[in-house]
Amino acid sequence: MSATTDKYAFGMIGLGVMGRSLLLNMADHGFAVAGHDKDAGKVSSLNEEAGDRKAKGFGDVKEFIASLTIPRAIMMLVPAGKIVDAVIEELTPLLEKGDILIDGGNSHFTDTNRRVEELEAIGLHFFGMGVSGGEEGARKGPSMMPGGDKQAYNVMKPIFEAIAAKVDGVPCVTYIGPGASGHFVKMVHNGIEYGIMQLLAETYEIMKKGLKLDNDAIGKIFAEWNEGRLQSFLLDITKDIFKYKAPGTDHLLLDDIKDEARAKGTGKWTSQSAMDLQAPIPTVDTAVSMRDMSKYKALRTQAAAIYSTADHQAIEGNTEELVAALEQAFYFTMIISYAQGMHMLSNASTEYKYELKLDEIAKIWRGGCIIRSKFLENIYGAYGKDQSLAHLLLDADVAALVEGTLPGIRKIVSSAVSAGIAAPAYAASLSYFDAFRSERMPSNLTQAQRDYFGAHTYELIGKEGTFHTQWVPKS
Amino acid sequence: MSATTDKYAFGMIGLGVMGRSLLLNMADHGFAVAGHDKDAGKVSSLNEEAGDRKAKGFGDVKEFIASLTIPRAIMMLVPAGKIVDAVIEELTPLLEKGDILIDGGNSHFTDTNRRVEELEAIGLHFFGMGVSGGEEGARKGPSMMPGGDKQAYNVMKPIFEAIAAKVDGVPCVTYIGPGASGHFVKMVHNGIEYGIMQLLAETYEIMKKGLKLDNDAIGKIFAEWNEGRLQSFLLDITKDIFKYKAPGTDHLLLDDIKDEARAKGTGKWTSQSAMDLQAPIPTVDTAVSMRDMSKYKALRTQAAAIYSTADHQAIEGNTEELVAALEQAFYFTMIISYAQGMHMLSNASTEYKYELKLDEIAKIWRGGCIIRSKFLENIYGAYGKDQSLAHLLLDADVAALVEGTLPGIRKIVSSAVSAGIAAPAYAASLSYFDAFRSERMPSNLTQAQRDYFGAHTYELIGKEGTFHTQWVPKS
Repeated sequence: MSATTDKYAFGMIGLGVMGRSLLLNMADHGFAVAGHDKDAGKVSSLNEEAGDRKAKGFGDVKEFIASLTIPRAIMMLVPAGKIVDAVIEELTPLLEKGDILIDGGNSHFTDTNRRVEELEAIGLHFFGMGVSGGEEGARKGPSMMPGGDKQAYNVMKPIFEAIAAKVDGVPCVTYIGPGASGHFVKMVHNGIEYGIMQLLAETYEIMKKGLKLDNDAIGKIFAEWNEGRLQSFLLDITKDIFKYKAPGTDHLLLDDIKDEARAKGTGKWTSQSAMDLQAPIPTVDTAVSMRDMSKYKALRTQAAAIYSTADHQAIEGNTEELVAALEQAFYFTMIISYAQGMHMLSNASTEYKYELKLDEIAKIWRGGCIIRSKFLENIYGAYGKDQSLAHLLLDADVAALVEGTLPGIRKIVSSAVSAGIAAPAYAASLSYFDAFRSERMPSNLTQAQRDYFGAHTYELIGKEGTFHTQWVPKS
Repeated sequence: MSATTDKYAFGMIGLGVMGRSLLLNMADHGFAVAGHDKDAGKVSSLNEEAGDRKAKGFGDVKEFIASLTIPRAIMMLVPAGKIVDAVIEELTPLLEKGDILIDGGNSHFTDTNRRVEELEAIGLHFFGMGVSGGEEGARKGPSMMPGGDKQAYNVMKPIFEAIAAKVDGVPCVTYIGPGASGHFVKMVHNGIEYGIMQLLAETYEIMKKGLKLDNDAIGKIFAEWNEGRLQSFLLDITKDIFKYKAPGTDHLLLDDIKDEARAKGTGKWTSQSAMDLQAPIPTVDTAVSMRDMSKYKALRTQAAAIYSTADHQAIEGNTEELVAALEQAFYFTMIISYAQGMHMLSNASTEYKYELKLDEIAKIWRGGCIIRSKFLENIYGAYGKDQSLAHLLLDADVAALVEGTLPGIRKIVSSAVSAGIAAPAYAASLSYFDAFRSERMPSNLTQAQRDYFGAHTYELIGKEGTFHTQWVPKS
């Protein structure tokens, strides 16, 4: 290796689509960056795409490390799990105290907690950072959620603010909080994403099987909605998907795609963690269970044959009115999806001492990320007005919006239910709302039952303490 | 300690309600049993209640151990988690190779897996056994789900078969399978229990807020239902709860109980594990999230004030017809709850190599346990006919029952939705069914979206391999 003063200010390990795109984004902003990957093809790809930019790929990890200015700043963008630990194990002997290591992948927050402790113990500055936006976001401006070592983040801040998406000139990156809070917030972001994606799938189902609309009509409705209050990245790409013909044919590629959804696990983690936090997020839970349900194609095919007499019926009524109701219904469920996610964040902030600023989180989700949408401005507004807002649905402006959608959501869910069309996330979102606005739930019966069979005791209204009753005489 | 030949055949550690009741049950069947607890009061309670029976409580663990015949057979019935490990740590130096140790508590199956390995390594026979039935079940005949060391179970079999609940003379206990399968099956049992309890709470809610029935009328309906195909332990105790007046008053104790439900975690574990297995059990998930929702009384009270314009309305229609629809609806959701649980067991059996016999599991759930019900005979019948039945809803007899309930469940869910009454587990059960019987789900859109923003690829109908599309020209 030749002696050179041409050092790089930032290093990336993992030159897949996301890593390469982020590096080129940094280079576009004038930063000198280096990348490393064990896959020689990916190293070459970076070097080819770099052109005149100050971006260089290395196949050799030692050369890569030696090419960086000190203290080094290195980001890993590799698959979550054991690979992250393997990379850390390979790297640490090559690093020096004071170097900064960033995990930009979708690591589980409990793994990040562990790594924060392990790496702090050997003098490295480590932070976990959620990065959202997919390939295009990474290349042109992602939303980033860094948490952990604040001092280290401040060193990196100029680079991240430069490459982040901007909304009204404001970069979509901010220090999230201590520990694994960055990865936690990204996980909840993905949970909301699962929810909204499932709701879009159900919207498609309702329009197709309930309203009997063809793809052309469905695509036009999605495109129209995306011009109004429903405007969002996910609706935007859905509208595009409804334009894309299978190559050499006259029908949509969408129609040829198998109805078996895959998942990388972040939605599942969100639901599992929400249960640990006792934060109900049934819309996300439903999205997770329906991705799982989609796997059972063979069982579903058998069930469809058995239960054919109860097949999916058309929803009766005026199509235009039903589409208007559906627009309300989708807006309602979008609001509920975000509200559940924000409530979960609020619980996590208390439980894990993350000191989350929900207005700041809404702010950086407005651009660059997969769940960016017009409605995030409303969320930003609600938490901006009241940073300690206990639940998004308690904001007066949001409440007014919700009230306006109630006729639509009730119409759509009751129609789908009557027609035999599965709209599980729609139904779960509405049930969540109706339970949330119940001053009195029927859970007193649950407590009575638990006390009856398990002597688990119950509490009484207006009295301190717990009580047990012998509900029937001992026989 | 005096030298004596009066040794005991079985020892229990943990003389709480369950442990003491099980021991007395054994003593009733002629077995000489010993108990140990650190709480002197609990030791005395056992000795007092023992009377002429061969049952003796010990405050000293060494005396307790010394009192047992060799090889020793000891069951722990202590709270799940660290306490189980602490008891094991205290015990192991006192035990000898060949002794049998049983964990009869609600341990998480992953803990049981670990303990199976640790204890096998030091020559102890360990097995995890789920015990259901609450206090009364333990005392008079529980349902028991032992898994792990089969040889050890066979040694214990005479005692367990003697004390188990009997249905048509058949004991409600059977060897479940290797490893932690006993605790796993018990966990799923509890998940189904959460589901049915939530459904009963919603039934109460619908009758109270939707049908505007008073407690007396509601109690009579529950009692009447319990004489028919809905007959079940949980309905039976619910009927009793609707008879129990708050002492010294003329109203039900139920009305005075806080609507904040507690949980010990087994329902949550079921949902979290189901997500790991990719087995959708949305009815159970909903029960878990609604127990959590019940905690947020202060938020719910605020929300009720804000959203009062959309308050819970009466469901319109003939009461008798609506109650008949509700009976169908509840039967439907009960079937779905069990079907989800059995499907989860079937997945776990494959994934964890438990070699579960679903007919045997249905058989031992028919009596003694919290989810015992008339419908379990149908489940036993379905898996008895076809042990490899892939899903309960695919059984022809079950399908006929389900078909008969569809008008009722659709009527009830659509009415609740329109009236603003929260019936989340009802809605989730119906959505599950409607998705399950969809040969074609809208998940192709989810896959297209994932490929669009994350290049996650998709599969095509009738083609091998995965594909990626550049959905819009790169800008």
